Amino acid sequence: MSAKLSGFFKPKGVALIGASSNPEKLGYGILSNMIDYHYDGKVYPVNPKDDEILGLKCYKDVIDVPDPVELAVIIIPVKLIAAALKKCGQRGIKNDIIISGGFKEVGEDGAKLEEELLQIARQYDIRFIGPNCVGTMDLYSGLNSTFIDGMPQKGGIGFMSQSGAVCGAVVNLFKDKGVGFSYFVSLGNEADVNETDVIEYFGQDKNTSVIAAYVEAIQDGRRFLDVAKDVSRHKPIVIIKSGRSDAGAKAVSSHTGSLAGTYTAYQAAFMQAGVIEVETISQLFNMAAVLDTQSIPVGDKVAIVTNSGGPAALASDSLADNGLSLATLSEDSTRKMKKFLNPSAQVSNPIDMLGGATPEEYNKVLNILSEDEKVDTIFTIYVPTSLVDPADVAAAISEQSNNTDKPIFTCFIADEALTETRKTLFDNKLPMIVYPDEIGAMLGGMKKYNRWLDREQKASEILIDIDVDSARAKLESLRPGYKTLGEADTRPILKAYGIPVVSGILAKDQDEAVVNAKELGFPVALKLISADVFHKSDAGGVVLNLRDENEIRHACVSVKDQVLKKVPGADIEGFLIEKMAKDGIDVIIGMKRDPNFGPLMMFGMGGIYVELFKDIAFGVAPITRDDVLDMINNTKAAKLLKGYRGSPPADIDSINDSVLRLAQLALDIPKIKEIEINPLRVFNKGQGSCALDARILLE
Amino acid sequence: MSAKLSGFFKPKGVALIGASSNPEKLGYGILSNMIDYHYDGKVYPVNPKDDEILGLKCYKDVIDVPDPVELAVIIIPVKLIAAALKKCGQRGIKNDIIISGGFKEVGEDGAKLEEELLQIARQYDIRFIGPNCVGTMDLYSGLNSTFIDGMPQKGGIGFMSQSGAVCGAVVNLFKDKGVGFSYFVSLGNEADVNETDVIEYFGQDKNTSVIAAYVEAIQDGRRFLDVAKDVSRHKPIVIIKSGRSDAGAKAVSSHTGSLAGTYTAYQAAFMQAGVIEVETISQLFNMAAVLDTQSIPVGDKVAIVTNSGGPAALASDSLADNGLSLATLSEDSTRKMKKFLNPSAQVSNPIDMLGGATPEEYNKVLNILSEDEKVDTIFTIYVPTSLVDPADVAAAISEQSNNTDKPIFTCFIADEALTETRKTLFDNKLPMIVYPDEIGAMLGGMKKYNRWLDREQKASEILIDIDVDSARAKLESLRPGYKTLGEADTRPILKAYGIPVVSGILAKDQDEAVVNAKELGFPVALKLISADVFHKSDAGGVVLNLRDENEIRHACVSVKDQVLKKVPGADIEGFLIEKMAKDGIDVIIGMKRDPNFGPLMMFGMGGIYVELFKDIAFGVAPITRDDVLDMINNTKAAKLLKGYRGSPPADIDSINDSVLRLAQLALDIPKIKEIEINPLRVFNKGQGSCALDARILLE
Repeated sequence: MSAKLSGFFKPKGVALIGASSNPEKLGYGILSNMIDYHYDGKVYPVNPKDDEILGLKCYKDVIDVPDPVELAVIIIPVKLIAAALKKCGQRGIKNDIIISGGFKEVGEDGAKLEEELLQIARQYDIRFIGPNCVGTMDLYSGLNSTFIDGMPQKGGIGFMSQSGAVCGAVVNLFKDKGVGFSYFVSLGNEADVNETDVIEYFGQDKNTSVIAAYVEAIQDGRRFLDVAKDVSRHKPIVIIKSGRSDAGAKAVSSHTGSLAGTYTAYQAAFMQAGVIEVETISQLFNMAAVLDTQSIPVGDKVAIVTNSGGPAALASDSLADNGLSLATLSEDSTRKMKKFLNPSAQVSNPIDMLGGATPEEYNKVLNILSEDEKVDTIFTIYVPTSLVDPADVAAAISEQSNNTDKPIFTCFIADEALTETRKTLFDNKLPMIVYPDEIGAMLGGMKKYNRWLDREQKASEILIDIDVDSARAKLESLRPGYKTLGEADTRPILKAYGIPVVSGILAKDQDEAVVNAKELGFPVALKLISADVFHKSDAGGVVLNLRDENEIRHACVSVKDQVLKKVPGADIEGFLIEKMAKDGIDVIIGMKRDPNFGPLMMFGMGGIYVELFKDIAFGVAPITRDDVLDMINNTKAAKLLKGYRGSPPADIDSINDSVLRLAQLALDIPKIKEIEINPLRVFNKGQGSCALDARILLE
Repeated sequence: MSAKLSGFFKPKGVALIGASSNPEKLGYGILSNMIDYHYDGKVYPVNPKDDEILGLKCYKDVIDVPDPVELAVIIIPVKLIAAALKKCGQRGIKNDIIISGGFKEVGEDGAKLEEELLQIARQYDIRFIGPNCVGTMDLYSGLNSTFIDGMPQKGGIGFMSQSGAVCGAVVNLFKDKGVGFSYFVSLGNEADVNETDVIEYFGQDKNTSVIAAYVEAIQDGRRFLDVAKDVSRHKPIVIIKSGRSDAGAKAVSSHTGSLAGTYTAYQAAFMQAGVIEVETISQLFNMAAVLDTQSIPVGDKVAIVTNSGGPAALASDSLADNGLSLATLSEDSTRKMKKFLNPSAQVSNPIDMLGGATPEEYNKVLNILSEDEKVDTIFTIYVPTSLVDPADVAAAISEQSNNTDKPIFTCFIADEALTETRKTLFDNKLPMIVYPDEIGAMLGGMKKYNRWLDREQKASEILIDIDVDSARAKLESLRPGYKTLGEADTRPILKAYGIPVVSGILAKDQDEAVVNAKELGFPVALKLISADVFHKSDAGGVVLNLRDENEIRHACVSVKDQVLKKVPGADIEGFLIEKMAKDGIDVIIGMKRDPNFGPLMMFGMGGIYVELFKDIAFGVAPITRDDVLDMINNTKAAKLLKGYRGSPPADIDSINDSVLRLAQLALDIPKIKEIEINPLRVFNKGQGSCALDARILLE
């Protein structure tokens, strides 16, 4: 499927339907761009009125365009587009970029037109980008189908955006800033080609070393997850997702006409797929530029070389904020540096060579640090002074960067008049960072990505002791329309999936309750069972720690009274008698089905603290044991579970196992919309865990 | 004291000691800068070798310089500086800027030289900036005593920096970016003039409307707090503090030779003084530029006007991240906009006028929003297109900005070729923001500042029922060298300060323990008292919930055994018998004396969650009731205390009262280094709170 996309970028010939001879029209701008950037295929302007535009023969109709032609770019009034697309199909042009807007983004009528385009495309085996986009650029073939003024530098960043304006802005912002691109793709409404198609294509493209995307909503979460996970293995993907907040989602929704998925699911999917998520445009391109040109640090230890302490302090703060640390240099390095640096220079890390630092000093110090095994990454900072030409410093850093595999990052704190410096750095694959306080977020993102890469890639494991038939049978036995399953109905389903549930026996009355309690052994808990009472605790339907027959009988009466007072007329089916569980740590696990990504698994600290501290983490099923461990480790609860302040470690494996089983249950039985086990009581390591209460919601 | 500083910026004449005729020397660069920027005072180069430099008569000795002269700028070898400063004193020059380095920052010998300068200054009533700095600029007098290449635009930002390199970098970064400055002050080693002096001066200066500072360490925390609090009332102060992390502090410490205070104390001081703290250089100047030119929003409701949805979505996310929200527009506004905007335009907020938006449309929409009472702040976003000259959009926005008191912020997402646009915006006091995702942090900082301004300014209140003499007497009664006071010794001190302590009576043996328990009423807690056992709980020295005489006697024996097993030979003084407290919410309050800012007050959630979630907040004493309420509200515990999930609200006032009393205790008795009440049990609203355990550390 994706091999086809090359026709969009490297066609032997391209027709521009809606080419214009009027320099104020977009159809003129696009034609100029097609001609101006060394694209060596054929360009065929199409428009019924002109014979020639910009020195090229103009065709009345796309049907008349000669070979070779593999791509049509369409910029004509919205009502003519379906017919034009059909003609492209008839002419055998299988790739189309539809620039024009007026489709889904303007409402229902537009959505119908867009649907029509898709049907035509399916009929003629066409793939198309857009509509409502600003086109594409391939910096290597030179084909520029946009009307954007200017072209970015050539490099390895494959960039795509669901916002055309963001494309234009990015060209303007980064044109001469030493950020090199392989592609620009404006996705528009994504009626056909979407971000996952492009990620797949970039993943296989030899000119692209890193994928950067501005994303508002992802069309097919499941496929995105699979493709992104594969691509991330060999090529980093950096994404800025807008519409993270409700307010942002509203802005996005009015813009593209597509409903943004819930952000929590996106975050979980990005994490599992190894996607590096950033929050600002500036971070997106900082990150992409370094990933394009420098190797990924193998460890956390950073050495800073500077000609000024202040910026080094800001850099150090930002490293610390992002979980990185300053390397402790080897004694050998320190000794060597002392020999030639200013006696007042600071030779421990950060290495402050003071304001008079020379290019030679940068060169020598970098050479020493390149060989220091205690250093994983080198960050050089240079504040321009009147004494030294910054381009010479850039050359010195470049020389060492070319001599080592260790990643070197460079910050020149200056915006103006550094043309030569920027060029030197860019030619030597050193992105120029302007603000030293940005280094932490960059290395922090790379660290996370690296940790993801380091993990062995595992398929989802096969879980044993799962009886899906019995779970299905239980669900089918429920009366129709019954959607909110309480503990009594949820227990057998969890048991069928091998999730440990506290021992308990249903009793239809007082006498059975007493018998059951004796069988389980005192003390027990008593819970009232009623399909009319979902929050049984809140309704007074739970009594804990009953020690003898008397207490049981008394509880049966009082619980019934209480509940009937709160839920008059509730149909009381009986009581659940449960063994009191021994002490442990209470956590919550659960699943909520996301319409886009599928079952979203949850783990968090139990009790009132779930909501108070929002100490929860999410993952998307299918999920691996490592993914779940990541989830647990992303909460503060992990500290508690690992043995906090001298208490013994808890059975984290058993939590992991229960989450995997819940995930399997969600995958097997799609009509389950939500599951919550709250609390899951976790005992000491090796002693398992046990669901003390649970509920299921059906579609 | 501060009036004096005007001599640094607006002197009638200035001597440059160390002026040079060699263009490669800094002494030449400074002289050029003194001449080049329309400074209309006298400039006197001083150097024993030249007769004339850059057309100015050169003096052999500063003694020979004629009147008027009020400032000397010194850039000569370090060993000659003391003598030069002395001569300045003799000549009657009371203001000196010492550019040269080689002092405290290079070690002990340098520190001695610096101390010598300070003695000379005191002798001659001199005030000096530096040493080891890059000088100052006054954009209004035109006096530039730096060797920095270029001068920023004129405006209302008074900027100071403890890093000279940061000064140079800032000039380079913001020279033509529409950020206007009143002053640049490089503070260097701050042997005499420090950041607080400059804040005080800027606070009174009519050309300065906002104060921006790069700070590594603050010299005199107490004075800073007082001065900053006063100045913030009428002029915002924005600070970036480096050395926030341990790593950053290390970088700072090696740089300025001064030890950074702990960051927690800084944060607390900034918050109480109304200082707007930012974390990046870019935020510092974004924030300063908007505070300089726009009014502070009166509320949280933001309207976004854009020609593109994507950037508006990013802006919306950043607003939500910072506690702001999108305004719901009035129906009247919506109706009016629908009349003239593109039918496909989005007229709810964000208002997306689509790619074809014209300057007239920006003008009209801004006019409507200016009058919409549901809108507090307007954020305009413009992504340059080929259809409209961005300068025309800038002019349209400027017109409306000049017609309304409502703050308008503008984002033009473009870096290149917007000279005319930038000029239009700058001339109309509209800072140009480049990245839409930066708006949230800006407005978030302003919101916090505004909330601080809104609070009534109160003096610390007089607390009644404090018996300082009895607290002092108790401390004096302790044996010499005894520094870690356990609960038994801490109780009377807390009581003397009116802090409620759980009822308890000391018992020297079993029999007394029984008598006491009967007096207090069962159930009681028993705690072993020993100066050798500080963490009595960990040592097994505490038993709760004793119900009768038997249990007391048994506990006395078992506790003694336990403790002696853990702390062999511990001197056991007796037992503390305490009434069991009723249920409530446990919090922790405390005080730790910060060497720079004074008593640092702490409040946090009690139990294991203090450390796990770090749910704590700090403030600096003297502290007001409002400050303490801010502290409490800055924790998640506040939610719990206000009545969580149906539980009754707790007595927050009584926590506040106890923190105020602890603060008074810390202020009254400086030898108390730390106090901790953990837990303070808080009962339902109106029912107070009670210290269940406490300890004091002495100096």
